[in-house]
Amino acid sequence: MNSKVKDFFVKEITKKNLANYIDHTLLKPEATKAQVRKICEEALEFGFFGVCVNSSMVGVCREVLRGTKINIISVVGFPLGAADSSTKAFETTRALNLGATEIDMVLHLGLFKAKEYSLAERDIQDVVRSAEGKKVKVIIETAMLSNDEKKRACELAITGGAHFVKTCTGFNGGAATVEDIELMKSVVSDKCQIKASGGIRDFDFALSLIAAGANRLGTSFGVALIGSAPSDLIIKPGDY
Amino acid sequence: MNSKVKDFFVKEITKKNLANYIDHTLLKPEATKAQVRKICEEALEFGFFGVCVNSSMVGVCREVLRGTKINIISVVGFPLGAADSSTKAFETTRALNLGATEIDMVLHLGLFKAKEYSLAERDIQDVVRSAEGKKVKVIIETAMLSNDEKKRACELAITGGAHFVKTCTGFNGGAATVEDIELMKSVVSDKCQIKASGGIRDFDFALSLIAAGANRLGTSFGVALIGSAPSDLIIKPGDY
Repeated sequence: MNSKVKDFFVKEITKKNLANYIDHTLLKPEATKAQVRKICEEALEFGFFGVCVNSSMVGVCREVLRGTKINIISVVGFPLGAADSSTKAFETTRALNLGATEIDMVLHLGLFKAKEYSLAERDIQDVVRSAEGKKVKVIIETAMLSNDEKKRACELAITGGAHFVKTCTGFNGGAATVEDIELMKSVVSDKCQIKASGGIRDFDFALSLIAAGANRLGTSFGVALIGSAPSDLIIKPGDY
Repeated sequence: MNSKVKDFFVKEITKKNLANYIDHTLLKPEATKAQVRKICEEALEFGFFGVCVNSSMVGVCREVLRGTKINIISVVGFPLGAADSSTKAFETTRALNLGATEIDMVLHLGLFKAKEYSLAERDIQDVVRSAEGKKVKVIIETAMLSNDEKKRACELAITGGAHFVKTCTGFNGGAATVEDIELMKSVVSDKCQIKASGGIRDFDFALSLIAAGANRLGTSFGVALIGSAPSDLIIKPGDY
């Protein structure tokens, strides 16, 4: 761990519990209800911020997590972002009705790439409106964007009314990088939060992303990641 | 070309026009409206059966293809199949309203893998009902299934009321194979049609798939595929 990250970690992260940064994620198409239940139980055990699942699995999460403070995050229009806006809006409403507390939607990359920014923004707004105040994250799929496009996408997330900008779906290549988080932070400042996702498996890397500005980490490797934390820093089950 | 395929081709395919087997496909998330318009124009030029696009692009296809006989195929719950059933049903209705004439949905692989067959079948039925008689294809994602599972998935497509069983999304690995088409044909017989999709770029391979039982080919390489056909067999623009 480099000294800058180490300093940040000692000052900030220990106060807040690293596990509470993590959206414990299971999005693979063949995931069964039993596997989804398992990540819910892990979220309870380790005190993760929430679980992140496909919309068909939100109800399963609610069965396990009802009455707890673990969040249920549903992806929407995932992972291509190319479902029509009204379908994304419908899926948002449906996910909330099933028990979701946050929505992770995918930017419409085709509109965005063609510089049809007002339509891409409206696509975000439609989801934000359907979310009725619940937090919405916009996945911009960093690996498919130039640095200028990443900045523009962050601006759209802000003007679209979203609460978070998020790096990657994990399905279209690419991964979270410290450089991208720094770039995104330089644009969104305090107007949006940042979720780093894609390829986050290592404890030190997770801390580097947080030090760079990430407010949330999406990963399928949360248990191993917390497990690899130095013993003097780890938050034990029950401590949260 | 092996002789069996050659014989089949001479007897059957020349009568029907190879291009008419092809769903000309553009599903990548960054596809722009201009790129979608281009595949519509190619479909008209080459006489493809239809174009296959994400639901947000169906309206663009209708602008170009209105009044022609080219079909507009919308994918639904694509490519994970893990959106909740009512969202898949909504997207189906929406796609039809926008101008789609066929629906390619993805099997709920999580339900299927857990042997929750009645729920996976109901997921198909919900889409079939919303399609109101329009043809529905069920993508079973062959690369993620054992041979026994492929057979079971074909049976579910039939009992779910679908009109086609389809091999691959192209997004979760895998590709159409002659062996899989033969296996699927052995199950569905004449109760369902078969769409081969995933990795179809070569003329001879396309004919092999048809000889094995495929009634439709989904490919993003239709223009090159038709272009590579022997000159004495190719159907020229305007012949269809």
